[in-house]
Amino acid sequence: MDDRGLQVLVVGQPANRQYLSGFAHRDETAGASAGWIVLTDREGFLITTSLYYDEVAMTVQHLEPVRAERRILDGLITLLSRLPGAAVGFEASWMTVDVHRQIAEALGRAHRSLVPSDDLIGRLRAVKDAEEIDILRRAIALTDRVYSEITRWIRPGQTEREVAWQIERTLREGGAEGMAFEPSVAAGPHAAVPHHRPSDRPIQIGEPIWIDMGARLAGYCADLTRSFCLETAPPDFLEAYDLVLRAQRVAMDGLRPGLDGRDGDALAREVITQAGHGDEFIHSLGHGVGLDIHEAPSLGRSSEDVLEPGMVVTIEPGVYRPGWGGVRIEDVALITVQGREVLTGALKQPVLFLT
Amino acid sequence: MDDRGLQVLVVGQPANRQYLSGFAHRDETAGASAGWIVLTDREGFLITTSLYYDEVAMTVQHLEPVRAERRILDGLITLLSRLPGAAVGFEASWMTVDVHRQIAEALGRAHRSLVPSDDLIGRLRAVKDAEEIDILRRAIALTDRVYSEITRWIRPGQTEREVAWQIERTLREGGAEGMAFEPSVAAGPHAAVPHHRPSDRPIQIGEPIWIDMGARLAGYCADLTRSFCLETAPPDFLEAYDLVLRAQRVAMDGLRPGLDGRDGDALAREVITQAGHGDEFIHSLGHGVGLDIHEAPSLGRSSEDVLEPGMVVTIEPGVYRPGWGGVRIEDVALITVQGREVLTGALKQPVLFLT
Repeated sequence: MDDRGLQVLVVGQPANRQYLSGFAHRDETAGASAGWIVLTDREGFLITTSLYYDEVAMTVQHLEPVRAERRILDGLITLLSRLPGAAVGFEASWMTVDVHRQIAEALGRAHRSLVPSDDLIGRLRAVKDAEEIDILRRAIALTDRVYSEITRWIRPGQTEREVAWQIERTLREGGAEGMAFEPSVAAGPHAAVPHHRPSDRPIQIGEPIWIDMGARLAGYCADLTRSFCLETAPPDFLEAYDLVLRAQRVAMDGLRPGLDGRDGDALAREVITQAGHGDEFIHSLGHGVGLDIHEAPSLGRSSEDVLEPGMVVTIEPGVYRPGWGGVRIEDVALITVQGREVLTGALKQPVLFLT
Repeated sequence: MDDRGLQVLVVGQPANRQYLSGFAHRDETAGASAGWIVLTDREGFLITTSLYYDEVAMTVQHLEPVRAERRILDGLITLLSRLPGAAVGFEASWMTVDVHRQIAEALGRAHRSLVPSDDLIGRLRAVKDAEEIDILRRAIALTDRVYSEITRWIRPGQTEREVAWQIERTLREGGAEGMAFEPSVAAGPHAAVPHHRPSDRPIQIGEPIWIDMGARLAGYCADLTRSFCLETAPPDFLEAYDLVLRAQRVAMDGLRPGLDGRDGDALAREVITQAGHGDEFIHSLGHGVGLDIHEAPSLGRSSEDVLEPGMVVTIEPGVYRPGWGGVRIEDVALITVQGREVLTGALKQPVLFLT
């Protein structure tokens, strides 16, 4: 905050707030915030409403709980008005225009200003400490185990939605507090849509299928994608699978501290491009993962984020062909001083044989 | 749009977007948007990325699909630059400061401006048509049925979290596409926190318990709260229950077109206040429910929304006492030409006897 000339910092983005306070609530928007953290160089507050005040007062340490009498935003403005300092940092990628206008108007009357300071907490969050890595390992181990179970019960004729629900149920009953994201199961032509939502289409023998899933544990997200065919795989699938796997291995081998997100992305993209399929790799190579399923650092074509030890990223190259389907293989890696440690361990088998 | 002097309208809020297009995706923020709708007086576009383009092209009618080559925001700005008109409406309660700044800078170079137009789609959504009401009825019927099942299997010693998961599982396996919100189960002192997150605390005989739950079906949300004690209820619970039920009945009887949100809230609040418990009713009486679990109209102390036939609202008075617990009773009502129709039908029993 000193480096940025900020006397006060306002934090409302749910993962940032949970990181600083432990208060775990997923707000839909800044306008419907369950709580705002306000930091100065010597004080910290968590302002909330009657809906959450008792929970905050009972569970949050190191921050003074403040109860807003009516609208939480009025409470936030009142608190900010009491604190000294001309420059108040805020999260421009979380705060809505409407909330910003109301705070800015009130502060403006006192000749104070709001300053975008998005990455202050995000940069702290990008580098995980030992406790966070331990939680991530457990979320990932649960996800690996459930994927291994899937390979034993999945059958042709089950719909994408049935498989997705069975995954969610097994993760939840296995100890997940929730899903890192809605599990996605995509088969046949649906597998050409990287963010496909499971449908009532039955999965079939011999068509491209991928499953993207992750447990959430104590707030932290696992993320795993595996691609396969049931029983038998056509040559074009096996070729695409080999290409994506090769690209993933090259990227994994190249990850190390000091590499930037653009160069990380390029490691895999070059392999796929040189094989003549560059236009089928229609998304980024990967993203940081932690309290948010997508967080810093980004591994993409325009990312200037630089890898550091303690960062945890997905490595997920893929190729997608409209009408045919797609292949994506995704693992999670921890950046270490020497290079990287792959945290995911689920088997990679291009063909699942029905037992 | 004409009334507001808008030539163009940009829509990104997920429920607004689903309402206009059927494209169902729950974005986390405007900065990570899966798609933007752009409307003029004669054209409509849905701009998305490769991640969703095929889904959009296959399923969305009445809007022209546009594929953004890289960043969706760049694609949106390019599209807006091509369209004539000086005033572009946007959702100030959804768009983030960061996204707004980028669009405003680009439009500003062409002397065009962004104008907050939040309620344009929200007002359309607040009044439901016959098809929407039919979906809501089905989501509510499923929720009612699962609540009835709960009353048969709930037992002392089960934890709040176990009960909540069992509810979610039964709703999902009963046909819900998802949860309208995470089911909440609050027992004993936890029942004093209106938005309690289920914990590992076992529920006990004779303590205040409430369950707040709702299925999501085809995007639409049910919302139901019931309060009870298991086996036996202390006099103070029965007294609080009677008071809340009485307040709910008075509010239900008073709902009619033309009433505003403030007066609606006051109907129940007066009953509770006159009984000397006004300071224990620490939230609003209710809210509209539809594609969002909280939408227009609001029934609260500062709401100027006016009820109209076709609006669907929750009626959920409650009292909360730190250390003791709380009572909330919530039903969903459709505003009709004559008054209101209560859509929820789950039994109200202050004591559940173990069978």
